[in-house]
Parts: sequence; C-alpha cells; structure tokens
Amino acid sequence: MVPVPKGFAFAVAAAGFKKPGRNDLAVMASKRPAAGAGVFTTNLFQAAPVTVARENLAAGGPIRGFVVNSGQANACTGDVGLVNCRVTLDLVGQNLGIEAEQLLPASTGVIGQHLKMDLFREAMPAIRDSYGKADPIEAAKAIMTTDTFPKLAWAEVKGFDAPVRILGMCKGAGMICPNMATMLAFVCCDAEVEPGLWQALVAKAADESFNRVTVDGDTSTNDCLMAMANGASGVAVTGESQDPLYEALAEVCGALSYMIVQDAEGGTKVIRIQVTGAADDAQADLAARAVGHSPLVKTAMYGRDANWGRICAALGRSGASFDPEVVSVSIAGIRIFENGRPVQGDMDSLLAPHLMRRDVSLDVSLGRGPGRAMLLASDLTHEYVSINADYRT
Amino acid sequence: MVPVPKGFAFAVAAAGFKKPGRNDLAVMASKRPAAGAGVFTTNLFQAAPVTVARENLAAGGPIRGFVVNSGQANACTGDVGLVNCRVTLDLVGQNLGIEAEQLLPASTGVIGQHLKMDLFREAMPAIRDSYGKADPIEAAKAIMTTDTFPKLAWAEVKGFDAPVRILGMCKGAGMICPNMATMLAFVCCDAEVEPGLWQALVAKAADESFNRVTVDGDTSTNDCLMAMANGASGVAVTGESQDPLYEALAEVCGALSYMIVQDAEGGTKVIRIQVTGAADDAQADLAARAVGHSPLVKTAMYGRDANWGRICAALGRSGASFDPEVVSVSIAGIRIFENGRPVQGDMDSLLAPHLMRRDVSLDVSLGRGPGRAMLLASDLTHEYVSINADYRT
Repeated sequence: MVPVPKGFAFAVAAAGFKKPGRNDLAVMASKRPAAGAGVFTTNLFQAAPVTVARENLAAGGPIRGFVVNSGQANACTGDVGLVNCRVTLDLVGQNLGIEAEQLLPASTGVIGQHLKMDLFREAMPAIRDSYGKADPIEAAKAIMTTDTFPKLAWAEVKGFDAPVRILGMCKGAGMICPNMATMLAFVCCDAEVEPGLWQALVAKAADESFNRVTVDGDTSTNDCLMAMANGASGVAVTGESQDPLYEALAEVCGALSYMIVQDAEGGTKVIRIQVTGAADDAQADLAARAVGHSPLVKTAMYGRDANWGRICAALGRSGASFDPEVVSVSIAGIRIFENGRPVQGDMDSLLAPHLMRRDVSLDVSLGRGPGRAMLLASDLTHEYVSINADYRT
Repeated sequence: MVPVPKGFAFAVAAAGFKKPGRNDLAVMASKRPAAGAGVFTTNLFQAAPVTVARENLAAGGPIRGFVVNSGQANACTGDVGLVNCRVTLDLVGQNLGIEAEQLLPASTGVIGQHLKMDLFREAMPAIRDSYGKADPIEAAKAIMTTDTFPKLAWAEVKGFDAPVRILGMCKGAGMICPNMATMLAFVCCDAEVEPGLWQALVAKAADESFNRVTVDGDTSTNDCLMAMANGASGVAVTGESQDPLYEALAEVCGALSYMIVQDAEGGTKVIRIQVTGAADDAQADLAARAVGHSPLVKTAMYGRDANWGRICAALGRSGASFDPEVVSVSIAGIRIFENGRPVQGDMDSLLAPHLMRRDVSLDVSLGRGPGRAMLLASDLTHEYVSINADYRT
C-alpha cells in the first residue's frame, strides 16, 4: 500500500471525457483545512484552471483539495472556459461538502476543447461514492493521458516527534499529452506549515526538480505543481525546523520529475546533464539547456553515439561565455574532450557499453567559475516524431 | 550554362577526403584583386578555417579566392588545425599563382577530424589542371556533404552602364553534414565595390537570408558566407548607387537560403513563419524562433496537422510580451485562431489540402505593434532522426 499522509482522501470517476470506462476525473482532498501552495506555467497562454487555481490560492484562505481531469485542457477557451472551470469546483464542492473556493482545479488534454460539462455533472455520484475509498494509485492513473505508467512518490520526514508523510503524484511531461497540456503534479503532506513557508518550500522544490527537466523545450499552457499541508500528523514545522521537511519534499519532487523524463514521449534514455565551472549559475543553466534541447545531441544519444562534437557546438552557441580552450566533457563518466581537444584513443569502443544504458550522464566543465546547473533531458527518437506527427490523423 | 560574373574561375579535384572518386575540393578564384567580405559563425567553438579566414579578411588587403573542402571540418583541432589550414592556402596559392594571404579557407565535415594533408597535397595537380575549366556547378557539387542537390543562384544587377553579375553557391544547412559543420555560402560579383561597403552589403544580405532560416536551431562551428567583388564588369558601385546591387545580392542569398531549408535533413516542408504586430522586431524574432524551433510545431507540420494550439503554446513561452486576447494565427493563409480563440467550423477539412503542400505559411499577429520578423523553418521527421541517430553507426 502507498502510505497516505494523515487526513487525506481520494475520489475517482470514469466520466468519459476521452473514452468510456477509464477513470479520467480525480479529487485529492484534505479532510481538514490545509495550507495550499502552487507553482504554475509561465506560458502567456494560461489555461482556465491555471487562472482559477491562482485566484483561489491568492485569496489566502485554507485549501481543501485538487480537482483534476484528463481529456480536455480547457486552454484557449476564453470566458466560457473560466465559467465552466468554476462550475466544476461548485459541483465537486457540493458533493463533498467543501467550499468551492477551497478547491484548486487542473486539466490536461487537448488545447482549445471545452470541458464536457454534462459528463462532469453525471460523474458526481461516482465521485461521492468513491470519496475516501479510492487509493492514490487510482488517482494517479486517472490523471494520465499518454503516460505509460502512473507516477507516485512518497517520503517520511524524519526527526520530528510524530511521523510526517509526503505523498506526490504527477502526469507525464514533454507535451506527452495530445496538444501539450502537460505537466501536472500534486503533493499532499500532513505536517502543519504556515502557508507562506509552505509556498516557499514548494517553489524551491519545483525549481530544483520539475524546472530541471526537459523533453522538447516546449512549455505547456497547463503546467502546475500544487501542494497541501494539512497538519493532521500533529507536527508543526516552522522556519527553524524546515530542513528535514524540505529534504523529503525535494526527494518526492525529484523522484516524480525523474519519472517524467523516464516516460518522455518516445524516449529511450534519461540524459543527466551537469555543467560546472561556469561564470555563474545562470550561465551554467544556459549551457545545460542548449545541450539538453539540442536535437543533434538528443538524436546522438538515441543512436548511442558519443558525439562530443555536437555537445561542444551546443555549448558554443548557448550564450554562456567561456574559453573553449579549457572546456572538458565527460560522457558516462569517461573524459572524452579535455581542454578544448578530443582525448585520443579508441574512445568509441570504450564508451559503447555505457551508451547502451537507459541513464547516461553528460558532465561539462566550462572552466574555473563557481556556476553550476543540472538538467534531466530525454532523447529524440523516431517514436517521438510518430507520436507528435500522427496525433489527430 | 550558369552565367559566371566576369573575371572569376573555378577549380575542383577529387582528393578522396571522405571517399574516392568524388570531387571534394573546390577553389573559386578571381583573376584580379577583389574586395572581400565575410560573415562567420557566432559559435564560441570556431573551426580553424573560420579563424584563418577572419584573419586574412582583417588584414584588409584584396582577396583572390576561396578554398573549400568537404569531408573534414577542421574544428576543435587546435594549433595543428590552424597550421594545416594555412598550409593548404600556401599549396593552392603556389599552384595557382595567388598569395596565400589573399585566399579564404572553408571546411565542412566531421568535427574533431584533421585535414588529410597528404591527400590535399596530392590533389594539387588536379586543381591546377582544372583551374579555369571547371564550371560553377562542379564547384557547388564538390562542397556538398549530405546535401541532396547542388545549390546555386545568380542575378544580374540592372541599371548600370554594363551588365553586373552575381553568382552564389552554398551547401546544406541544419547540421545536414555529419557532425554539424554546416552552412557554407560563397558569392562572386564582378562589380567594383569599396571593401567596407561590400562588407556592409554582404552582412545585411546574410542577416535577411541565411540568418532567417532554421532547421534544428543548432548553430555550427564552421558556418560562413564569404563574398568577392572584383570589378571586372567595369562598373563601380558606390554608396549612392548601392540599391540595385543590394537587391540582386539579397535575391541570390535569399534563393540560396530557401534551398537550404528545402534540402534540410529529412525535411518534407518549408515553413514560412511571419510574425507581425509585436512590440518591436526583436520580440517578433523571439516569437518566430520559438515557433520555428518547436519540435511540436515541426512534427505537426510533418503530420499535416493544423495544430494551432502548439503554435500558441510556443508563442506563449517565447519571451515576447503580448496580450493573448488579441493574438491571431493563420495557416496557409487561412485564419484559424482569432483574438485569442479558435475560429469555429470544420477548419481541419478546409486546411487539409493546403497542408499537403511542400511550402506552408504560418502568419501570426501578436497585436498592433510595429515589430515584424520572418523565419524559414523545416519540419521534423522520422528521416531527420534516422540521419542524426544513425550517423557514425
């Protein structure tokens, strides 16, 4: 059994938003008022549920749950989309005895499609019936689109008087969903945390996990990470005692974001890019993203080709400033490029067995600066092209 | 016959740099001193021929020719690469009676591989023999790597007392060459132009042609456009009379850059992205590049899917600032998204025949600002992945 933090309950229903007989609506609720936190897409086109979730969080009151559907993204749907979104919260709230303003919505599916409100209404009895009976795995399955496995991670926070638990779940990234309503992640925690601190911890954890992965560099209109801390464990966490809570939270978010890259569209590899020696962290990030977004590096990894030339070319156009004469690159821990020159020898045969693996590290040293950055990227495969070219045809 | 500007001569040879029996070395020479101009890659890793060409241009003297090989890129090859590059210019210069400092080198092929100096030396008699006999098509073929057709364009400049001709040639873009030693372009013109003006005209033409195309967003270590104007037509062009010369030059560069996208790795379509209504040109450029680099937009075009949602999502993450509520998008001239909403109706069937074509326009209006930008992009296909994943295996 997945260990559920105290005071949380789940509900799922097969509303038929995309196809019949598959759960596609999930509610993750706290039985008591919780501190809410959220991190949302930076895309200028923001889906209606993103707007409503931001509003409900900004109101500053306690949060009681997340309402998540797959099938339609409710993005680029205008005022009608906003009204529909609020109505879904009213419906769930009435059926579960929660104020609509204490619910945060999220949607994933096709951009431009409205929520199917009739189906949503008809699913309410099933939501009411399953409330408190559904387990987190069912909820994680209900929010899947083209994900190939449900994504859950949990941790116990050590060092307090009572056990404190964190449970997270998310759905796939990389525009893995038809038309790019992509990355949704949810965290439940039974610590008592003041909302401002909770938001800061969640934002920091997102920055070091979900914001460090890329599949295709396309930021979706619906991305969000939303989190509740409901205090049901009886443990209150303050600024002084935050470290173990943050570590557990970062562990859960890190595990989920790794799963997203593992399950990237058509992906066969997780590429772990580490850049060190940059002038500062921002420049290291530029360099890491240029490598992680490069179609040539990504196809080389797919082709099991230790192609350091493509890595260097990506670094050189990244916008990071460095001296090419001191750059070094290692693939799978093996130094293949040193001080601006390829290491001599039959490096290809040395590297070949490592490139067969599903997890490959690319370590880049740009020089002697303090800047560093990490990024998890997927490879670029025939299957990626198939998924994205064949969709809707 | 391709019309050759006056006073230019070509030479080709099959040196065997990559495989035997195929021309892979070309010299494009002016029989008289010419004004030289060049625009080079911005990649921090610059190939040896880029460094040497910059030096020879910076010396400020007249230019007499371009020496171009395919097979090895001579990039990331250190001091040995620089010495080798200079020796090749000495060899060609001695054989054709030209000062080595008046020659500009360019190389395309595998990064990290040294020039094969023995083969280069052995090719000199063939270069001497073919000098003045080879035609431009042979030269354009000799610089091909995985290009599927030679790329030439020419124009006659109108409005002067005597005919003035421009001839350009280039090789494929988009890292179409193994390991990304990519875009090489050469222009010969028989007008007499003061070097500073010639450089300005060439830089401007590059900015509006080669710098407006993208295949995969990866800038190579060897990119260059180099141009000679030798005055053999007897026509002197000055700042006052530059307009018709610039127009013809821009026409030649525009035609060549279009061919590069046509011949993009695995590409089936040229996507012509026009952004208008941005706050300024720089923001329009950000928006156009986000769309043109988006793997999701590029796979949708390959899949003949009028997927405006992916275009909007790319615009929204581009960094350009705009109000989503006034954005409009047309595909193949058909308005599919207007004022932040999809146009209703069976747009897919309306658009289907247009998406079968090999040239598709995407017109985006972000608002009412004066900023505009154009970008030619290729689509992303299974064949692109095959070419880049299978290379070296």
